[in-house]
Amino acid sequence: MQIYNAPVLEMKFLLEAFGYDQVSALEAFEAFDMETAVAMLEQHGDFCKNELLPLNQIGDQQGIKYDPVAQTITMADGFKELYQKYVELGMPGFVHPEEYGGSGAPVSLANLMGEMVTSTNKSFSMCPGLTNGLIEALKHHGSDEQKKTFLPKLVSGEWSGTMCLTEPQCGTDLGLVRSQAVPVDDHYLLTGTKIWITFGEHDLTENIVHLVLARLPDAPAGIKGISLFVVPKFDLNGERNPVYCGGIEHKMGIHASPTCVINMEGAKGWLVGKPHKGMRAMFTMMNHARLGVGSEGVALGEISYQTALAYAKDRRQSRSLDKEKWDQNAEADNILVHPDVRRMLLNIKSTNEAMRALCLWVGVQTDLAHSHPEEEVRNEANDLVSLLTPVIKSFVTERGFWNINDAMQVAGGSGYTSDWCIEQYMRDERIALIYEGTNHIQALDLVGRKLPQDMGRLFQKFNEKVSEMIRGCKEDPRMAEFLTPFKQSAKLLNEVTMELSVKAMEDREVVGAVASNYLNLFAFVSLSYVWCQQVKVALDREGSFYETKIKTARYFFNHVLPEIHMLAARIKDGKEHMMAFEPDEFWSAQGFVPES
Amino acid sequence: MQIYNAPVLEMKFLLEAFGYDQVSALEAFEAFDMETAVAMLEQHGDFCKNELLPLNQIGDQQGIKYDPVAQTITMADGFKELYQKYVELGMPGFVHPEEYGGSGAPVSLANLMGEMVTSTNKSFSMCPGLTNGLIEALKHHGSDEQKKTFLPKLVSGEWSGTMCLTEPQCGTDLGLVRSQAVPVDDHYLLTGTKIWITFGEHDLTENIVHLVLARLPDAPAGIKGISLFVVPKFDLNGERNPVYCGGIEHKMGIHASPTCVINMEGAKGWLVGKPHKGMRAMFTMMNHARLGVGSEGVALGEISYQTALAYAKDRRQSRSLDKEKWDQNAEADNILVHPDVRRMLLNIKSTNEAMRALCLWVGVQTDLAHSHPEEEVRNEANDLVSLLTPVIKSFVTERGFWNINDAMQVAGGSGYTSDWCIEQYMRDERIALIYEGTNHIQALDLVGRKLPQDMGRLFQKFNEKVSEMIRGCKEDPRMAEFLTPFKQSAKLLNEVTMELSVKAMEDREVVGAVASNYLNLFAFVSLSYVWCQQVKVALDREGSFYETKIKTARYFFNHVLPEIHMLAARIKDGKEHMMAFEPDEFWSAQGFVPES
Repeated sequence: MQIYNAPVLEMKFLLEAFGYDQVSALEAFEAFDMETAVAMLEQHGDFCKNELLPLNQIGDQQGIKYDPVAQTITMADGFKELYQKYVELGMPGFVHPEEYGGSGAPVSLANLMGEMVTSTNKSFSMCPGLTNGLIEALKHHGSDEQKKTFLPKLVSGEWSGTMCLTEPQCGTDLGLVRSQAVPVDDHYLLTGTKIWITFGEHDLTENIVHLVLARLPDAPAGIKGISLFVVPKFDLNGERNPVYCGGIEHKMGIHASPTCVINMEGAKGWLVGKPHKGMRAMFTMMNHARLGVGSEGVALGEISYQTALAYAKDRRQSRSLDKEKWDQNAEADNILVHPDVRRMLLNIKSTNEAMRALCLWVGVQTDLAHSHPEEEVRNEANDLVSLLTPVIKSFVTERGFWNINDAMQVAGGSGYTSDWCIEQYMRDERIALIYEGTNHIQALDLVGRKLPQDMGRLFQKFNEKVSEMIRGCKEDPRMAEFLTPFKQSAKLLNEVTMELSVKAMEDREVVGAVASNYLNLFAFVSLSYVWCQQVKVALDREGSFYETKIKTARYFFNHVLPEIHMLAARIKDGKEHMMAFEPDEFWSAQGFVPES
Repeated sequence: MQIYNAPVLEMKFLLEAFGYDQVSALEAFEAFDMETAVAMLEQHGDFCKNELLPLNQIGDQQGIKYDPVAQTITMADGFKELYQKYVELGMPGFVHPEEYGGSGAPVSLANLMGEMVTSTNKSFSMCPGLTNGLIEALKHHGSDEQKKTFLPKLVSGEWSGTMCLTEPQCGTDLGLVRSQAVPVDDHYLLTGTKIWITFGEHDLTENIVHLVLARLPDAPAGIKGISLFVVPKFDLNGERNPVYCGGIEHKMGIHASPTCVINMEGAKGWLVGKPHKGMRAMFTMMNHARLGVGSEGVALGEISYQTALAYAKDRRQSRSLDKEKWDQNAEADNILVHPDVRRMLLNIKSTNEAMRALCLWVGVQTDLAHSHPEEEVRNEANDLVSLLTPVIKSFVTERGFWNINDAMQVAGGSGYTSDWCIEQYMRDERIALIYEGTNHIQALDLVGRKLPQDMGRLFQKFNEKVSEMIRGCKEDPRMAEFLTPFKQSAKLLNEVTMELSVKAMEDREVVGAVASNYLNLFAFVSLSYVWCQQVKVALDREGSFYETKIKTARYFFNHVLPEIHMLAARIKDGKEHMMAFEPDEFWSAQGFVPES
């Protein structure tokens, strides 16, 4: 049972509440006023429901076919036709510049549409997702020649793109990259093996463009010796480049998304940007991708929630604990009478609506950062995007996974079967906590890089937003019940941040020990912020939608937010109790040291 | 990569620390002294590692083959031979009475061995697991004739057993059972459809005995009109009984465990126990099964932990945050230097060792409850088993799932692939939160039934154990750091319990709203108790095993236990914020009410 309706009503509210009017007022986005944006969301939602969703389970069950002799991959039934439809609608270029054939749409709007694609067919979504990253990298770091050669084909969707970072000996630590690039004439010949390459090979497009990290012969060791190359499957004369898919991974989920071993055997490539400066260019691509990956938690949480609700709505089991609620016309009551079923559904609802709001808020800031005429506005927006990107990538993917888990529990045994698909959403979502930089890498980025950056400027900007919210609401007595826990959470975050910044100067290991919990605390304050903003808007409107918003916020502040006290206690505990162990002690209970 | 070594060293310590000497001192168990018990654990651990584990992934990948015409099921390659070996070792009857051909072993010991079976092949473990439940039910409620007919064949493993409870319209609420049983001569003819029947059909044994809930023609409505029947696949004359497998479920995991639709079309059955009293007999079976299901969280957490450790041990990535720890002979450091990797591993280690201890403690109490000569001891042990059974079933399965999740994160992308099997363990474990009574049903059992039972006698017994521990340790200054948080947690539990029992009398819905969080709080106090006991024993011994025990306890009390404050806040929040919603409001954000 594949159940999905695009939550357009909710998205419209969020566009209103989180300053989309500032975006559509910009010259660059004048074609995307609110009315047009909502119409696009409607239309795109229908497309996702009618075209992507029906292939989602087929993709999971069929997976992809890898031919080890030809080293080619055949996608599941219908995916090729689906991709063609996606291209015909102009979706691959939706967010990209008109000069390359795109539509130049705002990121904030495109991200909401991206959420729908992920909800209805995550495996499929990864092909355009990766291509987007490649386009971003080339747009910012490619030569004019490279832009002219690659961007129109990528923006139209005729070609697709990959990110070739990981190698068997290096995932998180890209300084260990070993692939080699040797200069020959105007180009380079690349040799090496890359793994985990999403859509590294497939039959959806006529060409695949790989963005590859490798070392030049004179490269310094480590992360400062990495350069970036563009390596097309078919080179510019149409000749097959020796970059082949040597195998595929067998994974828990995203079965219709090929995860490839890519072998380069003297493959022709072109340097993107400057020698040895590949990591910076790669991060352009990755920061963009991280916001997208974060929203996967929202997307799969959303469809799981809808599925669990559809199950709950028709399921009768046991009697209400309140006799007055008994349905005398039936043998049992609908399970929505049971508080625990509500608890699980509200855990999802109250976090997923806030996480989507946070993603959208950062999406709006991204548009302002790129396109606002005033430098000050651009800089401030950029600071917020930079600070909140790791928070979104890590927290939203993790909480999205717990939300799917709650949805499964609501549906009981049915939730565990393939019939209701929640189990597929859970399997498909789980990788989001790992790829695009594991969640802990995000936490280190937040605590180790973003917090200390420019004497804490980013954190200060965030605090200004918090203060603005408090100032803007404190006169309204209806806001008090929300503002009080919000202020408490922000105060706790500030205390913890102060303590941590002192400790971190003395001992870097403390940063590693507390970063993951700190990121979650930071996320809760951010969610509290976006809940206050939603309530603020909802309080001045009339209608059941707004009343429910306020109730949902109330649930969040009273029932979900107390998690911050656990997080703060763990942060305060620091590193001592985890660093006290010698490596061998980890297998003390097993009584053996595993052989190497 | 299938990695497992039975944690016998740890189990031996727990047997010593949790009173196995009281068990082996009983006349019934004189053949199972400590030395014998440990030798059996060793031997059984080898069997599981060498025979069960190699078929685990094969079972997952091949699944079972259902023939819809013959309505038969063929198990995955090797399972039939494996089952034969299991039978030849006498494992099916290990814990059952000698008079039926069993070995009469203590439950405490058998449960540890059961953990090993689940660790290495959960799908396989479910066949003897269900048979055990059937044997328990017949032992306690069957007629002499029934015992004579069925028990020897079930105890030897020649036949297997099932539990046929669920029907399409009823899972949690068994009062809705519709299957009919009509008396004919000395037996009954049963008609109806059962679903989710584990090992309802297979080719491992020559006969399958179903234990079926159904209604007699004169049955009162609801739960008080349910009777229990034994319905063999082949009746006592060897004739095929019309009880057929009409289909199988496609599930997230446990692919080698057939989950069947069972259609009874006038199948011959015999009443077990008294008419309309089937639920009581069924609960004998289920309470037994619930302890077993709880330990699935320990079992799959254990193998996932070992797998993650094996990965971590050989993985080098990035540099330690502490320069002094840099391995100058390598490009990167082993990932065990990173605090966050340790944090995840210690989350598993510090909870899994405590959960196993809790299961064993309750296992010991089970043996005392059954076999101790003094009634007072039996009663007290029985109270503890009764109180802690729902706690173990719910908390241990849930935490086990999070532990597997942490193990997967340690292994990064590899954790998501089938190569390392953690993803299978996660899929196999997830059902444990649902079956044998969903985790919330356990919470309702604890709060709604066990707490108020006999004016709170069970809770009082638990509190006496807590006080005993405090009295027994308070003179030892080395215990203070553990005793202080333990006392705090117990105090918090008592406060919350008092408040809850007052509220629950006024409003039953509060029970439903807080039960799940309350059960987790109860579990944390129980884990603190068993940690204190482990530390107490370890403090008086010398050796690295015991030093690590104490460090692990320290991590638990400082880093894991703070979760109780979040739980207490949620319990105090009560029902108000979840009950404020009208049913339609759950899909407010989706802007539609799904069609029925």
